[in-house]
Amino acid sequence: MAKIAFIGLGNMGGPMAANLAKAQHHVTAFDLSDSAVAAAVEKGAHKAATAAEAVKGAEVVVTMLPAGKHVREVYEKDVLPNIGKGVLLIDCSTIDVDSARHVAALAAKAGLEMIDAPVSGGVGGATAGTLTFMVGGGDAAFAKAKPILEKMGKNIVHAGASGNGQAAKICNNMILGVSMVAVSEAFMLAKRLGLDAQKMFDVVSTSSGSCWSLVNYCPVPGPVPASPANRDYQPGFTAAMMLKDLMLAQQAASAAGASTPLGAEAAQLFSLFVNSGNAAKDFSGIVRMLDGK
Amino acid sequence: MAKIAFIGLGNMGGPMAANLAKAQHHVTAFDLSDSAVAAAVEKGAHKAATAAEAVKGAEVVVTMLPAGKHVREVYEKDVLPNIGKGVLLIDCSTIDVDSARHVAALAAKAGLEMIDAPVSGGVGGATAGTLTFMVGGGDAAFAKAKPILEKMGKNIVHAGASGNGQAAKICNNMILGVSMVAVSEAFMLAKRLGLDAQKMFDVVSTSSGSCWSLVNYCPVPGPVPASPANRDYQPGFTAAMMLKDLMLAQQAASAAGASTPLGAEAAQLFSLFVNSGNAAKDFSGIVRMLDGK
Repeated sequence: MAKIAFIGLGNMGGPMAANLAKAQHHVTAFDLSDSAVAAAVEKGAHKAATAAEAVKGAEVVVTMLPAGKHVREVYEKDVLPNIGKGVLLIDCSTIDVDSARHVAALAAKAGLEMIDAPVSGGVGGATAGTLTFMVGGGDAAFAKAKPILEKMGKNIVHAGASGNGQAAKICNNMILGVSMVAVSEAFMLAKRLGLDAQKMFDVVSTSSGSCWSLVNYCPVPGPVPASPANRDYQPGFTAAMMLKDLMLAQQAASAAGASTPLGAEAAQLFSLFVNSGNAAKDFSGIVRMLDGK
Repeated sequence: MAKIAFIGLGNMGGPMAANLAKAQHHVTAFDLSDSAVAAAVEKGAHKAATAAEAVKGAEVVVTMLPAGKHVREVYEKDVLPNIGKGVLLIDCSTIDVDSARHVAALAAKAGLEMIDAPVSGGVGGATAGTLTFMVGGGDAAFAKAKPILEKMGKNIVHAGASGNGQAAKICNNMILGVSMVAVSEAFMLAKRLGLDAQKMFDVVSTSSGSCWSLVNYCPVPGPVPASPANRDYQPGFTAAMMLKDLMLAQQAASAAGASTPLGAEAAQLFSLFVNSGNAAKDFSGIVRMLDGK
């Protein structure tokens, strides 16, 4: 098994590192939070006092950090100066495409293979080891990374060259955010027109309006028993995370010269929802705002 | 078999009347266009010189008209004054919920059963007899109408009381219009980020952004061979029809006090697309506008 350095042990990174340790990899873990490191050690990881110490002697480095600036800083200051040839770099953070490509270029310059591999599936998927990874990077790097990723996820998709993992994720999540608002608007309109939620679900789920937001994650209680609507919008996937991804999509669209009017409007609506004290609610809770509550 | 009066023989009504005649119903057909009547006669219908003449002696009246005002006028002036007790009224037009409920109330006052039964499936579905009907009206009327509708469609859904067929259709099509724009925006963003359309399709169609607009009606050429994108956006379902349905949704939302920000934005975007000379293009062609073409 591999010697893996894991940097970033938050809600997602913690259980991901635990799954690698459970699979008998030798995991050396670092996070700015001592308690996060302690929790990882309890799950079988080894403690590192700094990121630089974590990567020394590692064969694989996995990072799971909040934003592009953290990824740039950790790779520039801690990872790249302290590793040798042949180390595989895997960044699982969801960050802007430009930062992902910038760091991948630095790695390539140092003769190292790197992939961007943002995930979907939330804390539940991270804990259960059923995440989806959307991977950008070369074929050789993808092939090497796949067995590692398979210890943390079930669906490993290669989306092309460096940065394309991030691109695929923000494009997917932009559709998700827009469609959740659209489904929510339609349910609230249907309610005011006297159309029962279950009837509405039965018609639309078998018609051209059908989508994942409706069928797997219905924002009103009833039709889909497992959806967060049935547990007062406990996440799931928080509104704050959806807003982050929609803002990354807007940033990418602006930089790349793409027009995304509905993506922009959805970002503004989620901003309104998050800034009304709902950051930690499930993103499907936006239906309550659209209902005037 | 029944004596059926069929009023409104356009792109949809023509083939629907033909399917009733093909099923050995005695169809008496009327339209303001003589050539539309002549085409129906060629398919086995009998000619009527006026709407009033068409409904005399009929057991069932089917209407397929452009808008609420036509439905109100035809039922008030031609249908209701010229029929006896026990006639079943079926309005297949896509119109505003208020007009549908107004006409149904007039019918009820005259002791007649009526359903609103707007369709989805386009000209192809009308010709093949594979339409979906979304039906509003009482249980008895629905039960009586069902065998008639089954000669024109495959999926007959009862959405509740009068007007709920229209409500279900506009709620469904509002989600459809929004999701088509969202999918189009995401493909154009992906393209500018260097993510191949087929890769994008492969990732999103198996992820949380999946929706009918992507999987069955993909707006870019390639991934879904049967979609209008592969035949230069020949419809299919025209942009003009999508705009009509989105405007009906906006009218209903305004009247009922529902907030539909993305529905409103999608209506404006389709208005822009239609008013740029694209009324007769398939609605998925809006991807070209979002691409700056």
